[in-house]
Amino acid sequence: MKDLVDYCNNYGFIFQGSEIYGGLANTWDYGPLGSRLKNTIKDAWRYFFIQKRDNAYEVDADILMNPRVWEASGHVQSFSDPLVDCKECKTRHRADNLIDDFDENAHADGMTQEEMMNYIKEHNVPCPNCGKSNFTDIRQFNLMFATQRGVTNDSANTVYLRPENAQGEYVNFLNVLRTTRTKLPFSIGQIGKAFRNEITPGNFTFRTIEFEQMEFQTFCKHGDDEDIYEYFKNYGIEFFNMLGLPKEKLRHHDHEKLAHYAKAACDIEYLFPFGWGEINGTHNRTDFDLSRHAEFSGKKQEYCDQTTGEKFTPYIIESTYGLDRITLAVLFEAYTIEELENGDTRELLKISPALAPIKLNICPIKKKFHSEKAKEILAMCKKHFMTSYDESGSIGKRYRRADAIGTPWQISVDEKTVEENIVTLRDRDTMEQIELKVEELVPYIEERIQFEK
Amino acid sequence: MKDLVDYCNNYGFIFQGSEIYGGLANTWDYGPLGSRLKNTIKDAWRYFFIQKRDNAYEVDADILMNPRVWEASGHVQSFSDPLVDCKECKTRHRADNLIDDFDENAHADGMTQEEMMNYIKEHNVPCPNCGKSNFTDIRQFNLMFATQRGVTNDSANTVYLRPENAQGEYVNFLNVLRTTRTKLPFSIGQIGKAFRNEITPGNFTFRTIEFEQMEFQTFCKHGDDEDIYEYFKNYGIEFFNMLGLPKEKLRHHDHEKLAHYAKAACDIEYLFPFGWGEINGTHNRTDFDLSRHAEFSGKKQEYCDQTTGEKFTPYIIESTYGLDRITLAVLFEAYTIEELENGDTRELLKISPALAPIKLNICPIKKKFHSEKAKEILAMCKKHFMTSYDESGSIGKRYRRADAIGTPWQISVDEKTVEENIVTLRDRDTMEQIELKVEELVPYIEERIQFEK
Repeated sequence: MKDLVDYCNNYGFIFQGSEIYGGLANTWDYGPLGSRLKNTIKDAWRYFFIQKRDNAYEVDADILMNPRVWEASGHVQSFSDPLVDCKECKTRHRADNLIDDFDENAHADGMTQEEMMNYIKEHNVPCPNCGKSNFTDIRQFNLMFATQRGVTNDSANTVYLRPENAQGEYVNFLNVLRTTRTKLPFSIGQIGKAFRNEITPGNFTFRTIEFEQMEFQTFCKHGDDEDIYEYFKNYGIEFFNMLGLPKEKLRHHDHEKLAHYAKAACDIEYLFPFGWGEINGTHNRTDFDLSRHAEFSGKKQEYCDQTTGEKFTPYIIESTYGLDRITLAVLFEAYTIEELENGDTRELLKISPALAPIKLNICPIKKKFHSEKAKEILAMCKKHFMTSYDESGSIGKRYRRADAIGTPWQISVDEKTVEENIVTLRDRDTMEQIELKVEELVPYIEERIQFEK
Repeated sequence: MKDLVDYCNNYGFIFQGSEIYGGLANTWDYGPLGSRLKNTIKDAWRYFFIQKRDNAYEVDADILMNPRVWEASGHVQSFSDPLVDCKECKTRHRADNLIDDFDENAHADGMTQEEMMNYIKEHNVPCPNCGKSNFTDIRQFNLMFATQRGVTNDSANTVYLRPENAQGEYVNFLNVLRTTRTKLPFSIGQIGKAFRNEITPGNFTFRTIEFEQMEFQTFCKHGDDEDIYEYFKNYGIEFFNMLGLPKEKLRHHDHEKLAHYAKAACDIEYLFPFGWGEINGTHNRTDFDLSRHAEFSGKKQEYCDQTTGEKFTPYIIESTYGLDRITLAVLFEAYTIEELENGDTRELLKISPALAPIKLNICPIKKKFHSEKAKEILAMCKKHFMTSYDESGSIGKRYRRADAIGTPWQISVDEKTVEENIVTLRDRDTMEQIELKVEELVPYIEERIQFEK
């Protein structure tokens, strides 16, 4: 893990947020390569979930929503962590974590608040900081960030930073249905930021207070929901395969304990160096969400089947993808230290060409004689894809630098290019070189950076 | 304006935020077509500002930053509106707006708080609600949304939703310089959300409390700053021309009164139906920002010129683009009611093909005989670009629907397609039809949806 954090910092993938001010705990900024990688993963998701599918629509709802939305969703009432303070050393802890750390078979996530309190007292669960067992009562701490809208501080003006994107898709169910004139089953996707005021984030960008989700909500008829739920569990695996995450490092993890809104829930987990970690969740949310919004808004959230005339509230199958976690998984999977035949090693980001932040690196062999031609080719390529240019240092060093950030191809520009318009193109993974005419270069690369053949 | 708001709502470009709950004032959700349009404009910006330029890098910094950032930037102290309450009718107003509405030549933005107070009393400036002139003293109201990080309510834990993206680029100046090994002048761009707790937003999506900015900060040597400032004033016009906003509806508006950090400032304004409105701002921010961050963080923000060995704090030329406003301008510019020769009218979104939310609409002439072939072509096209499919209603009605949302091309699929693999392709603007082989379709369109030739 530490190697990857250093790698990300050294090459400009991910920096600590507000670093010059000592950071802000568990926030991270994506640098030039990281923001580019995140964008290619967004593009891949849009391709796989919106563009290539039928009846799939994207929305972009505001982060700040009417606070009634979060009453209907249940977040105001119950999206909270159970916290206790140690009376001895004044540190603050999550009661469920205290219990699980004390005995991993205790399953605190199945306990009520009272059961947790009793368990802590009966077993004298110790404070991880001072070792004593003398805690306050449990206090529920809501995980939503609250802020004030307008210029007064009345509680009527409290609005929240959304803790999930989903409600933005749900409250637009009727808008999308009306304007697209689509039929069930159809899907609404959304990419955007969400915020959770967690006290125990960690593992680099795996758990943060601000994160980006790619969500896909499929509205369907009750009765079709179980098949569609199974379908999206598997569709997620296909998506991750397309991103280069191999089957053997992915697994389904079915939930036994379900949230109040869910009939079934399953994660896809990737095998990170720190263990299996969730990168997707698929949930059969039944008609809970739309029914609650109908109840709280007073507006029916119904679909009318035009062949039978039947009106009903659709079921929702949610499949949600954590963009930061997926970016982290793609980096872990691709980062390689390769031993070469001559005993040297090279640092390599063996990432799918479609996801690579930069597609081509252009290297004039001799700056003085070849840089003019090289810059001509650079200008041509930049019209089509992200291209870098490197004229400093030995050609071997230049190749290594571009290998390390995952650039799939590099060309060297020399006398033959100037005279015959032919470049030598080097493959990142095989290090094999072929000759290409300059005019063949753009089509050669464009064909190979598509998400699917 | 009302026509466009209705159009956006009817076709799924823009909906009121949290609409089923009666909305949340001045928030807007982008629907299937609007989110797609916003994304194509982001892509255009990335192409024009990052991909095709040299020494241009993108970052994606968190919205929540260390609060010291906003002390250094001056926002904690002075990013505020001067508010007064009417003692008679209890409504709240911006003092500067009251004065400017009373006399547009009064120039309240050049007045101190005391001068505004005196002006209101001397001229008996009336309350726009009740007409009386009996106001409280002016109170400065900070426009940043504040929230609490962590589980206590100490003021030490107050963090802000960023009111501008710029500081995310500035605090990463050294990170980008170090990891890209670039030289001055170089640029850091960022696309992302910002938030301002304004009491007088309005004009649809023109002024909102949550908005998305596309920012481009160029770091340069003092002495080069004035030329670079002029360069970006004009580069902005070129960008807008590429988006289809014509020269005659754009103008530069140089600021006479400058913010505390600026040496020069100029807006690009577009002629909206409600008048000229700012869609870009270019500012010569001098070395103010980096010097302040050096002072507040205790970390030098310097560049070392490798040829002279000279160390100095760079100047910054900022050019910032309001994504929501630009989307609105593009919609205004493209929305057309066209009179046809036969006296009919057609609704048309005459948008650049590169920006069109959907590139191609596929229409089988007879559902029974041609839909299988049409769906084959659909699957082929969806691998490459956003494609829609319409088999309901008369062909004329189907064409009109796609014209109205700006789809540049439509094909009809008939017997000739089934037998000879030939489709008829219709151009949105000229309504002319040509025949194409099915295998020519994707290259024909891909060539025409590039941002630049």
